[in-house]
Amino acid sequence: MKRAGRRPGAPATRDAIVAVARRAFATHGYEATTLRAIAREAGVDPALLIHYFGSKDRLFAIATGLPSGLPLLLQAVAGLPDADFAEALVRAYLGVVDSDRSRNSILALVRSAVSHEQAAATLREFVTAQLLPVIAGRSDHPDARLRACLVAAQLVGIAMLRHVVRAEPLASAGPDEIAALTAPGIKRHLR
Amino acid sequence: MKRAGRRPGAPATRDAIVAVARRAFATHGYEATTLRAIAREAGVDPALLIHYFGSKDRLFAIATGLPSGLPLLLQAVAGLPDADFAEALVRAYLGVVDSDRSRNSILALVRSAVSHEQAAATLREFVTAQLLPVIAGRSDHPDARLRACLVAAQLVGIAMLRHVVRAEPLASAGPDEIAALTAPGIKRHLR
Repeated sequence: MKRAGRRPGAPATRDAIVAVARRAFATHGYEATTLRAIAREAGVDPALLIHYFGSKDRLFAIATGLPSGLPLLLQAVAGLPDADFAEALVRAYLGVVDSDRSRNSILALVRSAVSHEQAAATLREFVTAQLLPVIAGRSDHPDARLRACLVAAQLVGIAMLRHVVRAEPLASAGPDEIAALTAPGIKRHLR
Repeated sequence: MKRAGRRPGAPATRDAIVAVARRAFATHGYEATTLRAIAREAGVDPALLIHYFGSKDRLFAIATGLPSGLPLLLQAVAGLPDADFAEALVRAYLGVVDSDRSRNSILALVRSAVSHEQAAATLREFVTAQLLPVIAGRSDHPDARLRACLVAAQLVGIAMLRHVVRAEPLASAGPDEIAALTAPGIKRHLR
C-alpha cells in the first residue's frame, strides 16, 4: 500500500528500513546489529539511514517504539561530571516521560511489554544495552550493574505511578521537586 | 449461569458479593466503601462477608484483582519498629511479587491499568488509600506523602524490571541482596 507524497516511494523506503531494523534488533539485539547490515538487508545505501534516522540509537528507538527522546537523554547526561549526573538524569528523564507524545509511547510500550514477549525483549534490550551501562559506568561498586538496575527501577516506577496509576501527589509534583528528592538516593549507588 | 458444587448457590453468592464490591470500590473508593454497605446491596448478612473474605482489604484485593498477598504484606510490616521497616517492606514486597500467582496478577493488573481507566483507578485507590499511608506514616518530612510515592515507585519499578522487562542482574538477584541495596534509599525518606 503506497502513500501519496511529494517524493513518491520515499516514505515506503523509510518504512521498509524501519521494518528491517525492527526484525534485526529483535533477532540479534542492539549491540550486534549494525546500520551497515540493516542497509544491506533493506537494499539501500548506509548514508540513507543516517539521513533518515541520524544514528543507530535513534533508529532503534523508532523501530522499537521507544520514546525518541530516550536515546538523546542518555547522550545529554553522558558528558556531565559525576556531581551533576544523578539530578540531571532524573530531570532529563522527566522531560521525556512528561511530554504528551512520550507518555503515549510509554503507555503503548508498557502495554505491549506486558502482553508480548517481543516487546518485553525490546525494552530489555534498551535497558541492558543502553541505559544500564550509562548508569553503571558512574559506579565503582562491585555490584554496579545491580545498583544501576535499582536506579532504572526508580525511574521506571516514577513513570508508572505518575502517568499510569497517576497517584498524587507524584502525578502533579514539579520535576524540580521530584529530582531534588530522588537524586540523593541515586547518588548512593554511584561513585 | 449457575455452577455445580457441594453447596448449591454458595459460589454464586460469593461471586455476586465480589461483583457488588468491585462496583462499590470503583464508585466510592476504598475509604468510603463499608462491608456493611456491600452486604446490604448484595442482600446478605455482613457476617457472611467476614466468613468469605476475612476483611475489607482482602475483599478489595479480590474484587480488584490485586495480588491477595499485598494487603497482608501491609499488615505484616505495620507493627514493626522504624529501624526494621524499610528492609522488611522490601522483603515482604518481593515475597509477594516473586510468587508465581502474584506475578501473573501483577502482569494482568499492569496490562489492565495501561488500557482501562477503571483498572488504573483501582491501582490508584490501592496505592493512595492503603500503601502510601503505611509508608508516609513512618516519615516526619513535611513532604512525607510525595516521599512515600517515591518509595512506592521504587517498589513498582523493581517489579517491572524484574518480572516484566526481566533485566539482569535484577531478574535473578536474591531478595536479600535487593533488600540490602534498596532499604537505605527508602530509609532516607522515613524519620
